[in-house]
This record gives sequence, structure tokens and C-alpha cells, in this order.
Amino acid sequence: MKNHPIKPGSKLDLSQCDPGDTGDFEKTTQGKEDAKVVTEKLIGKLDELQERLFANGNRALLVVLQGMDTSGKDGVIKHVMSGVNPQGCKVVTFKTPSAEELKHDFLWRVHQKAPEKGQIGIFNRSHYEDVLITRVHGLISDKVVQQRFNQINEFEELLSESGTCILKFFLHISKDEQKKRLEERINNPEKRWKFNEGDIEERKFWKNYIEAFEAMLSATSTDLAPWHIVPANYKWYRNLVIAQQVVNALENMKLKTPPAPAGINFDTLKIE
Amino acid sequence: MKNHPIKPGSKLDLSQCDPGDTGDFEKTTQGKEDAKVVTEKLIGKLDELQERLFANGNRALLVVLQGMDTSGKDGVIKHVMSGVNPQGCKVVTFKTPSAEELKHDFLWRVHQKAPEKGQIGIFNRSHYEDVLITRVHGLISDKVVQQRFNQINEFEELLSESGTCILKFFLHISKDEQKKRLEERINNPEKRWKFNEGDIEERKFWKNYIEAFEAMLSATSTDLAPWHIVPANYKWYRNLVIAQQVVNALENMKLKTPPAPAGINFDTLKIE
Repeated sequence: MKNHPIKPGSKLDLSQCDPGDTGDFEKTTQGKEDAKVVTEKLIGKLDELQERLFANGNRALLVVLQGMDTSGKDGVIKHVMSGVNPQGCKVVTFKTPSAEELKHDFLWRVHQKAPEKGQIGIFNRSHYEDVLITRVHGLISDKVVQQRFNQINEFEELLSESGTCILKFFLHISKDEQKKRLEERINNPEKRWKFNEGDIEERKFWKNYIEAFEAMLSATSTDLAPWHIVPANYKWYRNLVIAQQVVNALENMKLKTPPAPAGINFDTLKIE
Repeated sequence: MKNHPIKPGSKLDLSQCDPGDTGDFEKTTQGKEDAKVVTEKLIGKLDELQERLFANGNRALLVVLQGMDTSGKDGVIKHVMSGVNPQGCKVVTFKTPSAEELKHDFLWRVHQKAPEKGQIGIFNRSHYEDVLITRVHGLISDKVVQQRFNQINEFEELLSESGTCILKFFLHISKDEQKKRLEERINNPEKRWKFNEGDIEERKFWKNYIEAFEAMLSATSTDLAPWHIVPANYKWYRNLVIAQQVVNALENMKLKTPPAPAGINFDTLKIE
């Protein structure tokens, strides 16, 4: 399976990454079914590993999800994380900052929501919006963008050095795929409530977004917190790639059953 | 299935409620399997209903879990709520208040964690600890206890009138069952990390806790936010009762697919 991690410092050309890639799986009903079986197994593993993460309580995992509108951020949370014990998994959705949040630096509200030890934290959008939508619409200068790249890298270094493993996923869909997904929301009356007129407006800036993403992904893919480009035209492959990465990250922590509390002689302990 | 809701204003005698009750299900392997099948179906339904709650975003559900140590609060969250999309479900575990929290009234930290509209909020312990452990250990006077009962009822009325449905569960286990569960943690090396010496200390106050629970359950079971006594010696029956209640509560909201956003002519809308 191709993970497409971005090499720190490399220049990125998203047109070279195929959003319709499905790795070793055929783009057929059979391929989809095969991938789903693997994903289900990974999710079972994820549930177990999360329990150990929670029990140990000395590490955290932060999963950052970014991508164009309709790229499947909500879908990943629903399909990959639904089996996880919600006691050990917190999702934070970052919307337009509030008046209070705007009175602080852009990382202020994000820092507050960083996962505590023992937890998986999922950011549905994140501090990366502050170098994307703001940049595309000319709300911040190039100088501020460069500053923010550095600030983000230093912030993530702090989290990382304090025990949080950071996984960042860019859900990569094609412009045609987005069209298909938006049309589905329009044509299916059951899905119309999901439709947001703003999505059509933002779509007009597709090229600018791609450029902003390329710059951002290149500048903020670090050894401690690399970005992964996830081919996301096929939802089942997207889910598989992310489930695999999350499981790998948790396995790399080599978590064991925590030791028994010290100073207790369990052999003589009696319950009255 | 018996739900054991507590009639507001009634005097409660917990010794009259059988913690080993399993309703219409036999206390056999077959009975357990039968109950699990029903519970699985309910959990599937819960997942669907939660999605609609999230989509509508105009109501919230608050589930409060209380009970003696080892009564299964964590188990309920794991077994009943693990299928739910974590984007719409937030678990809050209330531990010993921090120095900052103690500088405020006892509901201050709780109010901050009340679920926002569209969400299921789960309180693993809650503001009810402030009329339980504090009372058992004589840290607050009877006068303050009575005050707090009123304050709690008024606080929950506020939440309720603001669109939050409140479900409160007392997980009822017998003293023998607690002994069994504590011994399991002691005797199984894989489970020893869960063992907390404090649990043995608190067990010595079993009778006082029962009295404090009885007073609290009677005084704070209101029409808007009734307490349910859940027979919890059998974990599979406990899970079934709670899954059923949560599904009932969500069904009673009669949530539909949200309407399409107003002012858009979907028939002429084109995506370029």
C-alpha cells in the first residue's frame, strides 16, 4: 500500500499524485470488498491499541485531517473511528474562529484542544486553515504565511516532544470527483441539507487552493510530524490508508499492559 | 424489560431493587446471548439516531452515569457507545476537582462540559459526586446537601428547557458483586493495573454510600430528568437496559432528515 508521506523539505507537485490511486487493489467491486476486509481488521486492531494507549496514559495521538470541501474528512471519522471507545477519542471540529478566539494568536484555540495523554485526538480541520483559506483570499501576507509555517512547526515540535505522536493527512481528491460529490448533494433530496452554497464559491479558487496546499504541505512536513497524501477519490481506499497509518503509529509506541500499582502486596490482599 | 425509573418525590429503598435482575432474560448462557442480540440491534439503531441528532443540531442528549466503584460505568461507555461516531459523542470523566475548579461553585466545571446541540454527552461521574463522596465523608453539612439538591434540579431544568434531554443512570450492583470484581482485579495480573487501593477504603463505607445514593436519587429524580436504576450485576443486562433507554430517548425526539437550506433553487443549480 502506498502511503505517500511527504519528504521534509521536498518541493511538492500535487498533479504528480494520483487522487484515484487504489494501490494494490483493483478498482472493481471485488477490489473494494477486499479492501474493506483489510480495513475492518485494522479497525479491530485500532480498538485494542487505543485501549492500551488509554490504560498507559503516557502518550497521545493527534490525527489532523485536511482536504478540499467534500474530500471526506467527516467520512474518515465515521468509518475509521466509529469502532473506537469514545472515552479515549475526542474529535475537535474547527470552524470560523469566534470573536474571542480572534483576539488571540491563531494557535491559542488549537493548543487548548490538543489531546491529553492516553487519548486519540482528531482535528477535523485545524490550524492549517490559517495558512489556507486566509491565504487564498489574500487575508494574510506572504510574510505572515512564512512566519506561521515556522510557528506551526515549532508548536508541533512542542507537542511531539511532550509525548504526542502527530499524524497529518491531506485527503486528495480530483476536481472532477468534487463536482460529482457536490452534484450528489444537490440531486439527492435526502442529502440536500448537507449542501453549503459556500462550497461552490470556494470551488472557483481550486487552483489557488492547490497552490496553497502544495506550499503548506512542503513547508510543514517535518520528521516529527510528516504529512501523508491520501488518495481519496475512492472512499474505501482512503479509509484503508488512514486505518493502516493510525495502527502503525500506535504499534510503533510499543505499548504494553501497564504495571500493577507499586507498594501493594497482591498475594496477601483481602477484600472484606 | 424493567427500566426502574424513579418516580419523582418517592422515597427510595434500594434494598427493594434487585441488582441481579435480568428482566425477561434467563440467567444462562442462552439468556445472555439472546440479550446480546437485542443489544446489538439497539446499538445499530443508536448509531443511526445519533447521526440524525448531529445533522439537525437543535437538540442534545446528556447521559449521566453514577454507581459504586466497579459498577461498570466505563463498561457501559465501551460496550454501548463504541459504535457511535465519535464526532457526535463526547465523554467527560469527572475526577477530583482541580485547585482552580474548587475556587468556583460545584456546578461551574460541569456546566462547561454540558453537550452542545447535536451532540451526545456522556458524564462518567458528574456533579452528583458532590452530594455523595463529600457527604459520606462529612465534608459538607446536611444543609448544604439539601441546597445542592435544589441547585442540581434547577441546573438540570435549565439544560432541559434549553433543548437537552437528560438521562441519568444509577448502576446498581450488590456488595458481593463488587467483592467479586475487586478480587478479579487482584487475582488477574493482566488486570492489576486497574486496581486502586482507594476502592477498598471506600468499600468500608458501603452502607453510608447506599444511604447517600437513596437520598440523592429521591431528591433529584424529576419529571424532566428522572433517574433510572439499572440492575448491573449482569453486565449484558445492564448494557441492554441502557441501550434501550438511550434509543427510546432519541426516538422520542422524532428527528427527521433536516430540510435543505432555504433560498436555493436546486433544480437550476450547476456545478462548473
